Amino acid sequence: MGTIPADFCVDEKMLRIGGRPADALVAEAGDTPLFVYDFDIVASRIRRFRNAFGDVQLHYAIKANTYPPLLTQITKLVDGLDVASGGEMVSAMEAGAGADHISFAGPGKRDDELEAAISAGVTLNCESQGEVERAISIGRRLGRTPRLAVRVNPDFEIKGSGMRMGGGAKPFGVDAERVPALVRTILDQDAEWRGFHIFAGSQALDADALIEAQRATLLLAAKLSEEVGAAPPLVNLGGGFGIPYFGGEQPLDVEKVAAALNEGLERRHDRLRGTRFAIELGRWLVGEAGVYLTRIVDRKTSHGKIFLVTDGGMHHQLAASGNFGQVVRRNYASAIATQLNAPAEEETSIVGCLCTPLDRLADDVMLPKAGPGDLVALFRAGAYGLSASPQAFLGHPPAREMLVGKGL
Amino acid sequence: MGTIPADFCVDEKMLRIGGRPADALVAEAGDTPLFVYDFDIVASRIRRFRNAFGDVQLHYAIKANTYPPLLTQITKLVDGLDVASGGEMVSAMEAGAGADHISFAGPGKRDDELEAAISAGVTLNCESQGEVERAISIGRRLGRTPRLAVRVNPDFEIKGSGMRMGGGAKPFGVDAERVPALVRTILDQDAEWRGFHIFAGSQALDADALIEAQRATLLLAAKLSEEVGAAPPLVNLGGGFGIPYFGGEQPLDVEKVAAALNEGLERRHDRLRGTRFAIELGRWLVGEAGVYLTRIVDRKTSHGKIFLVTDGGMHHQLAASGNFGQVVRRNYASAIATQLNAPAEEETSIVGCLCTPLDRLADDVMLPKAGPGDLVALFRAGAYGLSASPQAFLGHPPAREMLVGKGL
Repeated sequence: MGTIPADFCVDEKMLRIGGRPADALVAEAGDTPLFVYDFDIVASRIRRFRNAFGDVQLHYAIKANTYPPLLTQITKLVDGLDVASGGEMVSAMEAGAGADHISFAGPGKRDDELEAAISAGVTLNCESQGEVERAISIGRRLGRTPRLAVRVNPDFEIKGSGMRMGGGAKPFGVDAERVPALVRTILDQDAEWRGFHIFAGSQALDADALIEAQRATLLLAAKLSEEVGAAPPLVNLGGGFGIPYFGGEQPLDVEKVAAALNEGLERRHDRLRGTRFAIELGRWLVGEAGVYLTRIVDRKTSHGKIFLVTDGGMHHQLAASGNFGQVVRRNYASAIATQLNAPAEEETSIVGCLCTPLDRLADDVMLPKAGPGDLVALFRAGAYGLSASPQAFLGHPPAREMLVGKGL
Repeated sequence: MGTIPADFCVDEKMLRIGGRPADALVAEAGDTPLFVYDFDIVASRIRRFRNAFGDVQLHYAIKANTYPPLLTQITKLVDGLDVASGGEMVSAMEAGAGADHISFAGPGKRDDELEAAISAGVTLNCESQGEVERAISIGRRLGRTPRLAVRVNPDFEIKGSGMRMGGGAKPFGVDAERVPALVRTILDQDAEWRGFHIFAGSQALDADALIEAQRATLLLAAKLSEEVGAAPPLVNLGGGFGIPYFGGEQPLDVEKVAAALNEGLERRHDRLRGTRFAIELGRWLVGEAGVYLTRIVDRKTSHGKIFLVTDGGMHHQLAASGNFGQVVRRNYASAIATQLNAPAEEETSIVGCLCTPLDRLADDVMLPKAGPGDLVALFRAGAYGLSASPQAFLGHPPAREMLVGKGL
């Protein structure tokens, strides 16, 4: 299974998150299952980005985690929030982001979402010619100038990325060759052109693949700008920074990516001299900051195999159960939070409380001997965790969430 | 892709559900996305079961769909409700089911769930020796006699079933060879023994495989009862009746299964003469009664491929997106509800509004030409639809639900 993130100390009996014992956190929250997010880990990722990337702006893709206290803290430290629905736009504003610092991407924006964004002055990353036309028409009706960036479907993708967002026929963005004409439409109408959004993939761990994609993105932005005959105010280079979920995966060498990008920006096309650049990150900022804590309710043996049955499950951890885009399920890093430094002495499987064989949290892992009352920790639960899971499934209580961190 | 269920007429321009036009249903509900459940289809399945299975009791596994108006109607027509959490137990009672008619299965029942069930007089399908011991202890503390059935992990499974629930090491139930001793524990203590729950699989379309599993279940129930030296009041034979989601799949020959079971019950072991038998169905009762209606927001072409982008998606239809236990995604039956009888003249892909490549509803299907404003229907959305999907993902509005049917 995956290794426990280096941010956590594994030498004590009780797992600590944000410096506080897991059992005390559960007591404070009132019950398991509980997601705990350590803001210090998020802040350390932001510092690492800032140190490496210099003037490149940092956006947070809030779809990764919209827990309001966490979002409010992140908003203070980043340059912009990227949202994917009208609901997320409201969350971003409630977290303190001004409309100038919010951009809204998503392939199926409804008219009421366009209206809300245009009224507020939020930038729309437009996904099609039809959407640009609807936005301009709505802006005229409202007497407001829509702020429109064009999302580009590039002809390349990040090699080996977990999810392909570009390359070939895609529902996202506008095919690159059609982009210049569409930008001209925006420039010629009652709209403000805000630039390009070029997203080539996500969950990439290979620095060279990211470097290659960013190099191609800069070239594409320059080519499109030349064809438009105008400089984009902002180029959102996308994100794609992955985290290592599984055994054998190596963390992304972010500094290597940054060095190559900074060099590329130094040598960028003259047309882009006045352009700002942003990288949009979700998972890399918050994924490793989250721990999912659940309590063992039953320990049973079936045909010689030990099962630890918890009060959590796939209704909070769809990705860990292997049902979120994965073809083959693999184990996320897990531990007995209440026996953290005890020797691993038996092979067990951790399952959730749902009455379905899909509800698997860890298959055949070596762990210390544990039983009812012990807490199980699932790591890397900070991104695409609770909000990306079928919380209502089987009518179990909602999971709790908590933000910790010494620096809060 | 899968064929449209025969319950729906495909000869009109506008899809009708429960006799009412899809656009009128959307207008009444207020907006898309909308799940419509036709109770007449559910009632016809219940009649078909009754006609075929004679004295065998019919239970509804409410995890398939807990929409309250639907659950209330089903409760009037079945003999029992099977629930999988304390929350579902409350839903069952609110739908009008008496505690005598509710049984509660699930591998990770918490103490508060056991307390609530024992206080109410609900039968617990116990999943382990530890759970039996906890239930007896809680019953003593409450001064109530717990009603305990034993869920058996059989040594066989339904061949070819969509989800394996028995055979080998499993988190569900008690290995068959340990069951007699556990039942003796129940009989010797302050508890009422309610029988066996033997569940061998789900989503099976092969009548012969179901017949074989039910035959083995009857033999196992007789063998266990002999070893116990007492007759179980009820044997829940499980369910497992599937529905054909995909092209090439044939509906289950329910009457063939019933004929074999009725014959097996005629010839059953003398020890089981006074025992009642139940079959527990979820998907087969409600799956084909549900239609998911979503509106096309955008029509776009990328590299020659047509995408219809809807205001719905995997946040309401995780299974249709291929992320609910499937290894390979296949298309559910879909249609343009507002152009139902128009000729299929172009290959299109239907996607949802989520900003993720996972959000696919139909890939490369031949459909009538459609565009913004048209309604898309996804069929077989009645089971494991809304409640089994990550509704909060990306902050989109909740789907609406509606119950229709001429017989209501």
